[in-house]
Amino acid sequence: MKLLKEKILADGRARGSNILKVDSFLNHQLDIKLLNEIGKEFRARFQEEKVDKILTIEASGIGIASIASQYFEYVPVVFAKKTDSLNIDKEVYESQVHSFTKNKDYNVIVGKRFLSQGENVLIIDDFLANGCAAVGLINIVKQAGANVVGVGIVIEKGFQNGRKEIEKLDVKVESLAIIEKMEEGKIYFK
Amino acid sequence: MKLLKEKILADGRARGSNILKVDSFLNHQLDIKLLNEIGKEFRARFQEEKVDKILTIEASGIGIASIASQYFEYVPVVFAKKTDSLNIDKEVYESQVHSFTKNKDYNVIVGKRFLSQGENVLIIDDFLANGCAAVGLINIVKQAGANVVGVGIVIEKGFQNGRKEIEKLDVKVESLAIIEKMEEGKIYFK
Repeated sequence: MKLLKEKILADGRARGSNILKVDSFLNHQLDIKLLNEIGKEFRARFQEEKVDKILTIEASGIGIASIASQYFEYVPVVFAKKTDSLNIDKEVYESQVHSFTKNKDYNVIVGKRFLSQGENVLIIDDFLANGCAAVGLINIVKQAGANVVGVGIVIEKGFQNGRKEIEKLDVKVESLAIIEKMEEGKIYFK
Repeated sequence: MKLLKEKILADGRARGSNILKVDSFLNHQLDIKLLNEIGKEFRARFQEEKVDKILTIEASGIGIASIASQYFEYVPVVFAKKTDSLNIDKEVYESQVHSFTKNKDYNVIVGKRFLSQGENVLIIDDFLANGCAAVGLINIVKQAGANVVGVGIVIEKGFQNGRKEIEKLDVKVESLAIIEKMEEGKIYFK
């Protein structure tokens, strides 16, 4: 997606070879016009698919998924919540996710009422790196007996394993910008 | 706002006299059509005001603020982040907030780059109860030398002190639904 890549080059900041700061438009301050273009592009990438619901994860995924829903006939958006503690509540689906950034495990939960058997669920998130969060969300959708129609990612770190981990589960991944490598202050797209 | 009140009566769940669960449309699963009507209503309530930026707080405020921005000429949305630890980063504005729900203090931070002197900032959040979060956000806007044009709230618990705390600071509050009282399973609006 050309507009997104231009925005990343203009306003993203590569910190070393692994950290990309996009907090001026994607995950602290949000550029709502850009999010609309991103939503349209997700619709185009998944135009063959029937989508009943969009699933994302707090916090950065929420704005992206909410705007995107408008291009998918306003389907409901559900955001998974992160929690440090195991949830004894039987009314939630739960999946453990490892965060490499914070070097700890956390749990991701979704209320059982918000995912139903047979529903077609599109997963949307801001970043794909090692794929832990996306795999956790896929796991939750499967627990509900629902179908994952695909994973839509805004920015993929193409030099990490996330795509492989998702494709192993036979799930389609669409990333709007794939970064091949980064050096201090420089970003190269695939 | 009639549509919102109808939705609260239909799908909200009063748990005792203080807890209102609206997770099927406002803060776990999101009804994006409803959020659009909410965004329009915020625009109407603040139509006299010049708004340069919308400030909210993770996680539940993000979807509401993102959709609302579309009715405010797509102004940028900034969401404050919650953190347990004091932040030694000099690049953030910070405010301490007490959570009565969790009975603990947490810190709310916003990157200094995302609030500028003289900017007109509309604060949006899902709930107003004791007002701690809103007062924390107002505090942050003032640290930046920016102006708070008002606080827009989806659901106000009118039986708590939040409105008074905000109005003490000479800030206008607009709530789209004000709950006068609750009993187990019953909700009364003002």
